Formats: sequence, structure tokens, C-alpha cells
Amino acid sequence: MSLIVTGTIGIDTVETPGGGRHEDLLGGSAVYFAAAASFYTNTRMVAAVGDDFPSAFMDTLKSFEGLDLAGLEVRSGSKTFRWGGKYHEDMDHRDTLFTDLGVLEEAPPVVPESFKDSEVVFLANSHPMVQMGMLDQVTNPTLSVADTMDLWIDIAKPELTQLLGKVDGLVLNFDEAEQFTGHRNPVSAGKHLLELGPRFVVIKKGEHGCILVHRDGICALPAYPTENVVDPTGAGDSFAGGLMGRLSARGGHDLGSYESVREALAHGTIVASFNVESFSLERMRGITRGDVNKRFDEFAQMVRLD
Amino acid sequence: MSLIVTGTIGIDTVETPGGGRHEDLLGGSAVYFAAAASFYTNTRMVAAVGDDFPSAFMDTLKSFEGLDLAGLEVRSGSKTFRWGGKYHEDMDHRDTLFTDLGVLEEAPPVVPESFKDSEVVFLANSHPMVQMGMLDQVTNPTLSVADTMDLWIDIAKPELTQLLGKVDGLVLNFDEAEQFTGHRNPVSAGKHLLELGPRFVVIKKGEHGCILVHRDGICALPAYPTENVVDPTGAGDSFAGGLMGRLSARGGHDLGSYESVREALAHGTIVASFNVESFSLERMRGITRGDVNKRFDEFAQMVRLD
Repeated sequence: MSLIVTGTIGIDTVETPGGGRHEDLLGGSAVYFAAAASFYTNTRMVAAVGDDFPSAFMDTLKSFEGLDLAGLEVRSGSKTFRWGGKYHEDMDHRDTLFTDLGVLEEAPPVVPESFKDSEVVFLANSHPMVQMGMLDQVTNPTLSVADTMDLWIDIAKPELTQLLGKVDGLVLNFDEAEQFTGHRNPVSAGKHLLELGPRFVVIKKGEHGCILVHRDGICALPAYPTENVVDPTGAGDSFAGGLMGRLSARGGHDLGSYESVREALAHGTIVASFNVESFSLERMRGITRGDVNKRFDEFAQMVRLD
Repeated sequence: MSLIVTGTIGIDTVETPGGGRHEDLLGGSAVYFAAAASFYTNTRMVAAVGDDFPSAFMDTLKSFEGLDLAGLEVRSGSKTFRWGGKYHEDMDHRDTLFTDLGVLEEAPPVVPESFKDSEVVFLANSHPMVQMGMLDQVTNPTLSVADTMDLWIDIAKPELTQLLGKVDGLVLNFDEAEQFTGHRNPVSAGKHLLELGPRFVVIKKGEHGCILVHRDGICALPAYPTENVVDPTGAGDSFAGGLMGRLSARGGHDLGSYESVREALAHGTIVASFNVESFSLERMRGITRGDVNKRFDEFAQMVRLD
């Protein structure tokens, strides 16, 4: 089924305790998502950059087969979104060094006519009103899922609550789920969020895995245990990309069912485990669907209990 | 196979944000461990109490079928170990309110003659020299596993290192693994610890599950996702009890193999998930092996990927 993602493309600066400082990296939520999803299915990307966007980055995006860039707007006279972050020693937390919004301060990109029939929609992190505007441009989505962040819970909770009435699923971090609901227990937080509309909530816990709270069931998965964590940037977006890519590729009559989402979470887990093994998209560029499948099978054996 | 546990019996005071303050609860590492293990196999307990130990607590211990109390020393003129703890709002961390060592300051209990042929040994948290003394009293153990805590890593690291040269497995918390090794990544920490002797290391992450680092493989499991966390006291000990009880009950030619330990971890996970649903042993007293099996099957379905 056709998958569309709306989100950001960024030029990132990332500093990690073990890896030093890396400037001018291709990043952004839509980029990490789409690269991950493209292992599973064709992915339509809607995002905007300025005319400062390096042609080498455009080549990188084009190198992902199955990435449809018809919705990528290159705006002359505009600046690409730039973000800088520095990870703490624990690699779990980071400080934002700078944010230059650039095109993100302008009108959001438009969903091209050829993308309006998309069946599966992922609204990567953005202001909930922008997310709603994007969702409205897709004619008749079968499954829509949104990501969010602490900033919108802080300053746009009513709009975010409104969005939750319109989407099938929500993906957010453990801390954000607590921030939104006041419940520290992720199952309680997830149930609270279900009451606002979505059929399922995926709570991301980084290196500790994730919890799915679905109207039809609850489950938890660990992260893939690895020593090789070079840069966590984009882990959540590539996780969502693997999840949504797998759901779209699998298709079927009930895309957002408990069992479908549960199984797809493990694909998100595996793609994200590759993503963190390098800065930017370097690791995801170097692997094939076969590599993903191999690690998936290894992971399935790790948690197999019957 | 015969299972022996050496550890503490305590009279606990526990305060939680949601549950208030509860005084004079039956607790201690050997108690939580043995209650959990007794769902799987007969469990021999070696521990000491004072003559202040309530007869009601003795009745509780006796109510667990398959708990062999021949190694429980009641010392006249001595005081039972007492501990008080207060949980933070997040239920992940706690402050120690008081510790009255009582019998723990005296000579450790002795392994009775009838227990010396035990095949599976669990050395619950204690000074590593005491743990070594206990291990030495068992004639020819097939599998020995130790727990430890931050205090011993602080003040008795050489002795703990010596112990690691003598046991097959180590169970410890995430923070303790980092404290011991300097590695925050649990896989790196586990590998470091393997170099000191044991065949496997189990890193406990509380509500985030556990990681097994074994010479023959690495795996991770989530905790059982539940809203019903009343009192986390004894979670780690009941987890170890389910793990070791299952290994002992299963038997076989290679008790400490990667696959055996991996499967047994899930049993530890499930028994611990019951334990946290009440103060003291209340919840574990009220369930049967059938209840444990039922939740185990549910958990197996949650993480099943093939």
C-alpha cells in the first residue's frame, strides 16, 4: 500500500562523547523515516528545503530506491532547517546546541496531487496544526499515525489533543507520554491517550525498547541489544519508518490491528538498531533488505519463548 | 535438581507513593527468592533470624510448599535483620530509611549436612566473602549464580572479583554493572564481567526488563507490561528465584547454557511481575503455578515474532 511521510529535512551538527563533532550531516525526521521505510516499500516524502541544500544530499536521497521525492520542495531564497545537538555521556539525553528553523518558518509544503491517494500516512513531528493540515490533504487514508514532541505538549496541547481525535495511532517518547498524561507508568499513559481517540499508542523508550498500548492488547519489546551505538539521532524516526514501512508492505484488511502493529514494531526496532550504528544515514545506506531480515530473524530468536 | 539459596530474611518497613507506609513486613532476599523458586522446584533456604521473628512469618514461609527450612537458624538472643525503604514517585528509585543488621553482624548461617549435595546454588546478595564461604560448603555444585549490590562494589571489589572467578553466573542491576565496569552500555559491561570468570551475566533493568550477556549469546527481554505496580521490593530476588527455579526444574545436561538461561529469564520476569503487585509475599501467596504458566504464555505471545 502507498505510504506517505510528511516531516523535516535538516542539515545537522551532532556531537557525541565517543564520536566527536560532525557538521553538515543530512538529517531530519522525514529523511530518517523515509530511508528506513524504503527497505519495505515505496515511500512518498513531503518536505521542504532551501536552495542551500547540498546536491550531495539530494544524491543521497535519490540513492534510496523506492523513495519518491515528488513532494520535496526546493525553495529558492530559503534556508534549509538546521539543527545542532550534543549527546551526554549516557547517549540517552542530549542538549540542543542550536535550531535555525529556515523553511520551517514558512508555509508548510504541499502534498502533490499524485500523492493524495496515499493509503498510509505518517505525520512526523511537527506543530499539530501543520500535521492536521497535511492529513487533510490526503483524500482517504486507511491508516494515519502521528509523532510528536515535548514542545507541542507544552505549547499546543489543545491542538495535539484535536489531532489525536483524527489519527489511528500515536508514536511518542516515554517522557513525553508522562508529560502529556501525568502518568509515569507507560501502560497507564497509553490508556489515557487512547481515550483521546487513537486506536493505538507506541511509547518509545530508546535503548529500553518500546511498549504498545492498543485497544486490543498491550505488549512490550526490548531494543536490539548492541554495543555499537555511534549516534542515536534519528533512532525514533527510523523506528517509525520501519514500523510504518512494514505495515504498508504487509497490507491486508486491517492494517492497524494489534497483531499487525505488534509485529511491525519489531521491524522498526531492527531498522533503528542499524541507524544508530553511524552518523546520518551512513549505515542505512550500506545495508540491504537482506541485512535487515537477517537481524530480524536473530532478534526473533532472542525473544522466542515457545 | 536440588536448589539452595543463601541470603537474608528481613522484617521490612516499606513506604510507596501510592500505598502508604507498611511496617513489619516479611522480606529479605532469600525469602523473595525462595517463594518465587518454589513455584518451580523444592528450594532449600539457608538464612538466620533472631528470636524476635514472628511466628506468623514462620507460618507464611511454611505455607510455601516445597520450601525446605532445615537451614533456617533461629538464634535466641539475636535480632532479625530489619530494613526500611521509601520509594520515590517514579517507583524506580528508593531511599533506605534505616538498616538494623541484627543477625547479619554475627557469623553467617551454616549449610546443613542434608543440603551439602545441592546441585544448583544461588548466593543472594551478601558480602562476597560470605557468599564464597557459603559456596565452599556445597560439595559439588553443577551451577552457581551470585547476586550482588552497589555496597560490595564500593567496599569489597577485590573479593567480589574473586567470587566471579568461582561462579557460573552473576545477576546484578544495570547501575551496578556500570559501577563495576565503567561501561554504561549493558552489553559492554556484561562482556567485561565475563572476562572475570562467569559464563553469563544477567543485567536487571527493573521495569525495562533484562539483558543476558552469555559466552554463547546475547539477548534482551522486556518486563511484563503492567499498570499494577504496588511495591517493587523483592522484584530482583523474585526474578532470580523464577530464573533459578526454572533452571533447576528443567535440569538437563547443560543447565547454564545460553538457551536454558534465556528461557528461564522469562520465567523470572513473570514471577517478578506477580511479586510487585503487592507488599511482601501477599501476591505470591495467592497464586498457583497455573497462574504463573498462564501469564507466561501471554508474555510469550507478546514477544513472538515468527
